[in-house]
Amino acid sequence: MELLKERIRRDGTVKGNDVLKVDSFLNHQMDIALFEEIGREFLRRFADCGVNKILTIEASGIGIACVTAQSFHCPVVFAKKSQTRNIDGGVYVTRVESFTHGKVYDVIVSKKFLGPEDNVLIIDDFLANGAALEGLIDLVNQAGARLAGAGIVIEKAFQPGGERLRSKGVRVESLARVASMSEKDGVRFVD
Amino acid sequence: MELLKERIRRDGTVKGNDVLKVDSFLNHQMDIALFEEIGREFLRRFADCGVNKILTIEASGIGIACVTAQSFHCPVVFAKKSQTRNIDGGVYVTRVESFTHGKVYDVIVSKKFLGPEDNVLIIDDFLANGAALEGLIDLVNQAGARLAGAGIVIEKAFQPGGERLRSKGVRVESLARVASMSEKDGVRFVD
Repeated sequence: MELLKERIRRDGTVKGNDVLKVDSFLNHQMDIALFEEIGREFLRRFADCGVNKILTIEASGIGIACVTAQSFHCPVVFAKKSQTRNIDGGVYVTRVESFTHGKVYDVIVSKKFLGPEDNVLIIDDFLANGAALEGLIDLVNQAGARLAGAGIVIEKAFQPGGERLRSKGVRVESLARVASMSEKDGVRFVD
Repeated sequence: MELLKERIRRDGTVKGNDVLKVDSFLNHQMDIALFEEIGREFLRRFADCGVNKILTIEASGIGIACVTAQSFHCPVVFAKKSQTRNIDGGVYVTRVESFTHGKVYDVIVSKKFLGPEDNVLIIDDFLANGAALEGLIDLVNQAGARLAGAGIVIEKAFQPGGERLRSKGVRVESLARVASMSEKDGVRFVD
């Protein structure tokens, strides 16, 4: 998605060799007009899949998922990162290790909102090691739902998550695939 | 907002006398068509205010804020609930006590995304004791930004947050104001 790549080149900042800051438009301040274009692009890629539910994970996936859902005319469910008093006992649970935050946490979805009748598109802002995405796929499998695929805004293609999941047969569509990056040379994309 | 009240009556569930579960359409599974109506209603109420930025707090405010921002044609900033490695040092910080989760946490916004040039509409799903909303207002004040007001989806009007903030001069617009609720009698709205 050329518009997105241009935006990453212009407004993204590389820290060290593995942190890509896109907090001015993607995951802290959010450019909703860009999200609308992202949602339309995900629809182009998954239009033929009969998606009836979008699944994401708090927090930075939620905005992209909600705007994308307007293109798909379906509800969004966001997985939560730990049990709160307001969630019923009837939940699917999976464990996810966050490399960004350096900890392991439970990710849960209420059984009421994911089941065998669902054909799920997973949406998230980043794919790197693939831990969060694998956790969401585990929740889809626990629910007996069908997985249409995963729509990712930015994939760090130099990290192993994307290839590992594709090799397992998961359809992963990433709108910008970063081949390499550095503070000195900026971001280089795949292709 | 009658559509919202009907939905709460139909799909909301009261637990004890102070928990209103609306997780089937508002804050776990999210009905995006309803969010679009909510966004248009917030625009009707704040159309004359020159809002150029929407501020919310993770996680459940984000979806409503993003869809509302489509009506206002402005970006969204979401405040984060603890410092992560991916945030620069230059942040506004406030402390918020969560009654839902029974703990106190830091809420932060990068100084890059909130400043004196901003005229801010705060959006959140719930207002009860007002702790989260007061924290967000503190961040707006720290930034030297103007506060247009707060758009709340559901206010527990039997708890003190809304009245305390209105008495301080904050314009709080709540789309559904719950006067009282119980497992036996369900939800009764103000008016």
